[in-house]
This record gives sequence, C-alpha cells and structure tokens, in this order.
Amino acid sequence: MNTLPRLQIDLNGILHNYRTFAAARAYADTIMAAVVKDNAYGLGARAVADILYRNGCRTFFVAHGTEGSEVRTVAPQADIYVLQGYGRDTRDHFIRSNLIPVLNTPAQISLWHQDQPNQQRPALQVETGLNRLGLTATQVATMTETERDTFGLILSHLACADDPAHPQNQEQRQAFQQIRTLFPHAQYSLAASDGFLLGKTYQFHIVRLGAVLYGLNPVPHASLHSQNVVQFSAPVLRVCSVPGGSAIGYGADYITPAPRRIATLSVGYGDGVFRSFFPKGRLWFNTPAGWIDTPVAGRISMDNLMCDITDIPPEYVKEGDWGYLIYDGWTADEMAATCGTIGYEVLSAIGHGIRAQRTYI
Amino acid sequence: MNTLPRLQIDLNGILHNYRTFAAARAYADTIMAAVVKDNAYGLGARAVADILYRNGCRTFFVAHGTEGSEVRTVAPQADIYVLQGYGRDTRDHFIRSNLIPVLNTPAQISLWHQDQPNQQRPALQVETGLNRLGLTATQVATMTETERDTFGLILSHLACADDPAHPQNQEQRQAFQQIRTLFPHAQYSLAASDGFLLGKTYQFHIVRLGAVLYGLNPVPHASLHSQNVVQFSAPVLRVCSVPGGSAIGYGADYITPAPRRIATLSVGYGDGVFRSFFPKGRLWFNTPAGWIDTPVAGRISMDNLMCDITDIPPEYVKEGDWGYLIYDGWTADEMAATCGTIGYEVLSAIGHGIRAQRTYI
Repeated sequence: MNTLPRLQIDLNGILHNYRTFAAARAYADTIMAAVVKDNAYGLGARAVADILYRNGCRTFFVAHGTEGSEVRTVAPQADIYVLQGYGRDTRDHFIRSNLIPVLNTPAQISLWHQDQPNQQRPALQVETGLNRLGLTATQVATMTETERDTFGLILSHLACADDPAHPQNQEQRQAFQQIRTLFPHAQYSLAASDGFLLGKTYQFHIVRLGAVLYGLNPVPHASLHSQNVVQFSAPVLRVCSVPGGSAIGYGADYITPAPRRIATLSVGYGDGVFRSFFPKGRLWFNTPAGWIDTPVAGRISMDNLMCDITDIPPEYVKEGDWGYLIYDGWTADEMAATCGTIGYEVLSAIGHGIRAQRTYI
Repeated sequence: MNTLPRLQIDLNGILHNYRTFAAARAYADTIMAAVVKDNAYGLGARAVADILYRNGCRTFFVAHGTEGSEVRTVAPQADIYVLQGYGRDTRDHFIRSNLIPVLNTPAQISLWHQDQPNQQRPALQVETGLNRLGLTATQVATMTETERDTFGLILSHLACADDPAHPQNQEQRQAFQQIRTLFPHAQYSLAASDGFLLGKTYQFHIVRLGAVLYGLNPVPHASLHSQNVVQFSAPVLRVCSVPGGSAIGYGADYITPAPRRIATLSVGYGDGVFRSFFPKGRLWFNTPAGWIDTPVAGRISMDNLMCDITDIPPEYVKEGDWGYLIYDGWTADEMAATCGTIGYEVLSAIGHGIRAQRTYI
C-alpha cells in the first residue's frame, strides 16, 4: 500500500510524436524544433531534450534563460532560443550557455547589443496579430537594413491556429509574409503545433513543436494526432460505505442521493489537480471488466479527492488500488475539458507538483 | 530590465502570524502546530519550518513521509505528523526521520504494526463527517482497549469551519467528543486555522495552523486576521498602443472596445497563474499616484499575460516596471476570488512554479 501519487512519462512516446509530425512536414528541409519551455510542459525539460537531442533534434525553444541552461546540459550543439528574450536577470545564462534570445521590443534589442553576452545572431519576434510580444510593422520600418541583418530568425505566433477556420490565421500569415520580406538574410518561423497543421504555407524554415510532443491535440479534428505520453494516478487510501444524505468533503458541497461507496484517493490540488475538477471530473479504474470511470464526489482537497465507486463491483476497487486521472484512454485534454480548461494547463500544473513519484519509461 | 517573475516571501510575517494566533488560544497549554504540507502551501517547507522551529514550534504536520524528511532537516526535536498516514512507498522516511503517521484506515494500522518502522506512538484519524479519511465510530468500536491505547493522538477534520454558522461544525464536534472518550490516554486535535476561530470548545490539545500562517483568511469576518506574507510580481516586457477592434491574445477572445495601451507581463499559467484569471483578474502597479489596478486583457498564456493600462498615465508604467498579482493591498484570497477559487489553491499553484526568482525576506 502506498500514499504518494504517481506520474509516469513515456519518453519514447514523446520521440514517437516528434517523428510522426516531422514525417508530415511539407518540405524535407524544414527544421522541426522542440518547445521545452515550462520544464517541457511539466514533464521534465532535461529528460525530454535529452531523448530528442540524442535522436537528431538540434533546435529547442524555451521561455527563459534559466530554462535554456537546463537544456544546454543535454544538448551541447543545439540552437536554444529563449522566447521571453533577453533580460539582465538571466544574463549569466546567455553567457554560460550560449543561448539565442528572441528579442521582443526595441528596448530588448538595445540591451542585447549593449551587453553582448555572446556572439549568437539574435532572433526577432514580430507582431502579426496576437498582440502579445514582438515589434510592430511600424517599428520594423524604422530599422536600418544593417540593423535588420543582425537577426538570424524572424518569428511570430498565431492566436487562433487551434481553429483552422478562423480568419485571423490567414491575416496573421499575410502580415508575416509582408514583414519577413524586410529580412532577406534571415530564417522564418510562424507555426507551433497547431499552426503546423494549417498546412505547408504556414511551415516556413522552423516549426516549433510543443503541445503535440506531449500528447496534447489542440486541434480536435486534425488529420494527424499525437499519442498520450502520461499516466497520472493515485492510490486509494480508503473505501467507505455511507448512507444516503451524507455530506462528502469541504463545504458539505456534495450530498449522496442514496447509499454510496466512496473512495478517497491520495491526490489533490497540491498535486496540480484543479479544484475545478469538481463536479465534472472522472476517475478511472483498471478492472478485470476493463477500464471503468467514476465521478468525483465533493470538493477537491489539497491532498485528497473522493469519488463515487458504487457502480463498480466491490472486489474491483480496494484500498491500495490505483485510480487514474490520465491514461491512454483518457488524456490530459479530456481531463482538462472536465475542469473547463485546456490540456496545456493541466499538464503544466500536474508537472509542477513535487510530490508525485515521477518515473520515465 | 528583467524577464523572470518574482516571488517574495516574508518569513517574519509567517512568524508574526504564528504568534498572533498562538496568543489568541483559549488555554495556554494548547499546542499550536504548524501545517507545512504541500511545501508549506508552496512557500517552502524547509524555510517555514526552520523559522518556526527556531522560535519554539515543536509540532508540525505534513501530508507525506517525503515531506516529513524535509522538515526533519531543520526541526531535529519536533513531532512531525504525516496526515496521509503510512505507506510502503515512504517507509524509509518514517525510519530515517522518525515520523509519526496519522493512520486513516484499519489497513494502514495493520501495515504500521507489521512494519514498525520506528517506535513512535501513531496518531489515529477518526471520521466525524468530512467523509474523507479516518476510522468510523463503528470501526473504532471493534478495537480492543489495548489497541486503542497504542495511539498518542486522536485527530479529525472539520468540513465547514470556514462558515461559523454551518450546523455541521457542531455536529462534527459532538461526534468527536463521543469518539474521543474511547481514547482516555491520548491527546486530541480537531481544529485547523478556521476551526480554531470557532472558539475554545474546538481547540483541544493541538491546533493545526496552516492557512493563517501564510496570510490566508479562510473566515472572512473573523475577529482575528493574518497578515499577507507574499509578493508576486512580473516585469512588463512590452507596452503597446493598439487601435480599437484589436484582438488580444489566444482565440482573439478579447477585442479592444477603443484604442488601448496594453502591457505584456512575463508571467503565465506556467508560473501558476490560472487561465481562469481571465477575464476578472487585476494587475497592480505601484505608481507615484499610489497603487493602481488594471484589468487583465485576453486569455492567459503559458508564459505571458496582458493587461489594459490605458487608465494609468504613460509615464507611470514603462517596460521593465513590475506588475503585481499579489501584494499587501491585494492578497492571495483576493486574487483567488477573481479566479473563482480559494487562496489555498492560488498559493499552492504559484509556489509550485519553478521559474520565479524566489527570495525570502
């Protein structure tokens, strides 16, 4: 019998996803980069970068200089781009790990040239409609040709690529096409996982694969799917039969409509299971009759959650058994839908949990 | 100019909160224990336990054996209780760190006596109405007197203590009173922070202070309040003026109703800011005209969020300045309300983020 939750990460699955999408690119010379920011969406940047680097990936994207140094330890010859750009607080990382900044404002450009922490040609983000980061067309127009030629990569990011029919996709692509002509000596990158699926006119020199590496499928009806790479489960600490009218959990927010069997699992929001998992969340059990799901019952605690296992024969779920929140038959995207959010946020939150026993397969 | 978000934790504030609540106990010999599970609600179990131990706290509660070992490094002589109880996966921690399990089921009791990892008298959790963990009155009744006398502490947990008027509080207290008479040689503990505020009949031998140590106030109109101990802020990477009708962020989910100035901060759900922070979240800026708050504008990204700073004079918010999500004037509880959750979950999520520059004051 155990008490710790368990997070199992299938590194070969991540490699498989990388290869699946790389094989689908329109042009053989398009670089398929791996986005390993936020500790590889919570799954472990070092482990993920390591297996991809050992299998030929030579381009990585992180958010911060600190993350870049993590990746550098396993990817000595890779290009490592830092999306939040260059700041003084991570200067040492740019020096030590020879990172490439994605410069997002005129102020970041000035600071980079002033400090010159390494000899890399920086990347430049340009604004095409997300209204988040990057130089506007007006700002780019004020640069001299010499200034523009300092950049090795021109990058932008799509706001609506998870919805292939959204008109903003084409508008952003056209804006990107227009700006990029001002940088004839640079490479170009517009698409992340979902943008890649919009087709060859979105792929340019570098595609930034993140979500699909980790088994997320941001575009529901896409032609290409990634496979789940995560199993997240927790031991059943207690099984208890309660009469009808019993209050389960904090706030007495769930009252049993009839006699019920309630299982208490050793996992909660302290492990990244959002409180919004109640009331729609499902817990899965692997039984001799196959996988069976049960509804969460009562508010999520910091260290525990309860589910209603009345519909499963008692001999199939016992104390010490494992209840699954994510497995191959119920992915992070599906769990996220029950919480009213997206798989990205679910993986990130679970991956930040420091208590689960983490194993790499 | 910086790119990393920043989490500042006021350890003296935590000590102040501990002392404030300890001073308000009804009986001078009530033990005020510190709950430091989930890495002290994300704020750092080792740092928190260290300052409290150095100032006289000798009783700690954690959720898992692994967490108990963290605390033991700074609290050599303390009683460290493990709320999820005893499991084989953390056996080494019970041996090495001499932890006290809170046994929650007959199976955990058997396993403890079978393994006997140390000589501590275990604690027993009893079920009084939360329907989460602990032995029911029926299960307790089947134990022999000798079996009952093995326990040094009898513990239960209130479901509705944040609502002093809720009838379940008194029901649970009465159920606890009844069960505890069967354990005449043990100590008793029923109340956490909110239960403590219900008054002296809830305080018993040990009070388990968690939330209030960390500046949370789960009972809104309580006579006693804790002070904020967290400042969470992020640098403004970019300020951009956009025309009316501009789509901000993913999904083009926010359209500016008129020309606006938008600030992009270097913090997102990868740092524990829930996606549900949009649309009600507020960002605060410390200006010469005092603290001014601004609304979040557009969906929260993994590494960024945007806010509308139009109403602040341009010279007051520049690139490189800090926007605050939590400070003394806007606590984790208040931030949580804008996300539709509670301060506990907000602190835990932010505390799990591994990218913020963490400093202890």
